[in-house]
Amino acid sequence: MSVPDWIAADWGTSHLRLWIMRGDTPLRRIDDPRGMSKLTPDGYEAVLLELLGDELTGPTDVVICGMAGARQGWKEAPYAAVPCAIPSEGIPVPTSDPRLRVRILPGLSQSSPPDVMRGEETQIGGFLAAEPGFDGVLCLPGTHTKWVHVSAAEVVSFRTFMSGELFDLLSTQSVLRFSVSDGWEQGTFLEAVNDAMGRPATVAADLFAIRAGSLLSGDAPGAARARLSGLLIGLELAGARPYWLGQEVVILGESALAEIYRTALAAQSAMVRTVSVEGVTLTGLTAAYSRRTA
Amino acid sequence: MSVPDWIAADWGTSHLRLWIMRGDTPLRRIDDPRGMSKLTPDGYEAVLLELLGDELTGPTDVVICGMAGARQGWKEAPYAAVPCAIPSEGIPVPTSDPRLRVRILPGLSQSSPPDVMRGEETQIGGFLAAEPGFDGVLCLPGTHTKWVHVSAAEVVSFRTFMSGELFDLLSTQSVLRFSVSDGWEQGTFLEAVNDAMGRPATVAADLFAIRAGSLLSGDAPGAARARLSGLLIGLELAGARPYWLGQEVVILGESALAEIYRTALAAQSAMVRTVSVEGVTLTGLTAAYSRRTA
Repeated sequence: MSVPDWIAADWGTSHLRLWIMRGDTPLRRIDDPRGMSKLTPDGYEAVLLELLGDELTGPTDVVICGMAGARQGWKEAPYAAVPCAIPSEGIPVPTSDPRLRVRILPGLSQSSPPDVMRGEETQIGGFLAAEPGFDGVLCLPGTHTKWVHVSAAEVVSFRTFMSGELFDLLSTQSVLRFSVSDGWEQGTFLEAVNDAMGRPATVAADLFAIRAGSLLSGDAPGAARARLSGLLIGLELAGARPYWLGQEVVILGESALAEIYRTALAAQSAMVRTVSVEGVTLTGLTAAYSRRTA
Repeated sequence: MSVPDWIAADWGTSHLRLWIMRGDTPLRRIDDPRGMSKLTPDGYEAVLLELLGDELTGPTDVVICGMAGARQGWKEAPYAAVPCAIPSEGIPVPTSDPRLRVRILPGLSQSSPPDVMRGEETQIGGFLAAEPGFDGVLCLPGTHTKWVHVSAAEVVSFRTFMSGELFDLLSTQSVLRFSVSDGWEQGTFLEAVNDAMGRPATVAADLFAIRAGSLLSGDAPGAARARLSGLLIGLELAGARPYWLGQEVVILGESALAEIYRTALAAQSAMVRTVSVEGVTLTGLTAAYSRRTA
């Protein structure tokens, strides 16, 4: 068995992912459900020792990104303010076991309009490691989708939209849950994107109209779900227009949600391509590790 | 004890309110928690008999408004389509006890954009009984706020906004729950109304900025709550502008929410006044009873 050089860690709210590394090569991956939300600050080191145990033959660097660096995480890694390059210097975290040399990478912040990210900056770093000359916009779809303007190897500005969380809340907890069923109608989705882009102000009424429409005339299965998604993404595309209009847009991800964003943007004639997110976090952690000045 | 002429009932989703009536005068009010959501169709008559029991000396009219007339209620009272006057003819509901002569008043529907109301139409009827010549717009604040254009004693059109339900979900179930606390900052509220009216498309990002702002710089207590409310009501006022701009607007209600709408509209120089909603449902039921052709 090879001796590891270092450990890469993506420590999020609900999940921990570790890679045991030799140079750029992952020797083994470990997944664990003990995310930030399940730990107090004194619990993190024990998790690492339990999972890594015998691998640690001497002092070993551990490079961490994600919510472990939040105020309520292991130790706060203060945000780096944009415009800036992707941070590669993490803040050191004291440990009891001398074999662990832990650093947590900071997230990014923006003062106006106020915005933050923590974890996504490392994905962006991974993308830029593969395409260092990229000048354009990254879209990172998720519960809180990020739109990120990158130029000259720096993050210039970014904006976070809550559309994904709104979709989850509205489809499962609001009066719309009685209308939203499984399935998908692509034509209905694209029509709703156009409606919301054209009249963003009436979205809160157009949402109720989903319920009223299904009461009055019934709906094909999946139509309400597609219309709800289309209204929220259309509202977002209207608000994010300064990001994507006339720019090269790269969607980071290959999830079903990423594909929904891609079709909505393509229908607006945006210049859009999709890049695999598989491994991009590890690439970002590796880039940070290799650029460290330690 | 006087003998009742008839019974008025506001039978909503979560609550039943009965008035034992002699002409226009309520002799007694009965409140009961057995709303539509707790009953199956065969349960309604038993509730009435239990609550009214000895009052029913002979055949007695019972006039009901609200969700008891929904498809999943006692018996469906199909919507009346606008434009139309407030319906006063209810649909008859068969009962086993011959002392009960039950009718349920229908709600209103609109085909384009699709919309429905059930219960609010009787409040509107109560308002119009007091101001029969009213020509203008009614705003009925609530979980699903209704904007209603009334002219020549008819409801011409209406629109329902989900802003209240969005506020409840976002303040208690989303990431914003970590930032929203008790309290209220009126200046922050009015600024947020203006922000959302000016840039409705970015609301889903402005919402996340509430969280980011409190992470980055903290917030005075109540500021996040006021900003969340202001963004949602500003978005609604932007979408409802065709209703209130240049019209006389009457807000039906004296709740804290009604006062919030009033201040937001007044800040936009809208012609707005508030009318007490106390008793307006009973007035509407009385108007329907007195106009019945039975």
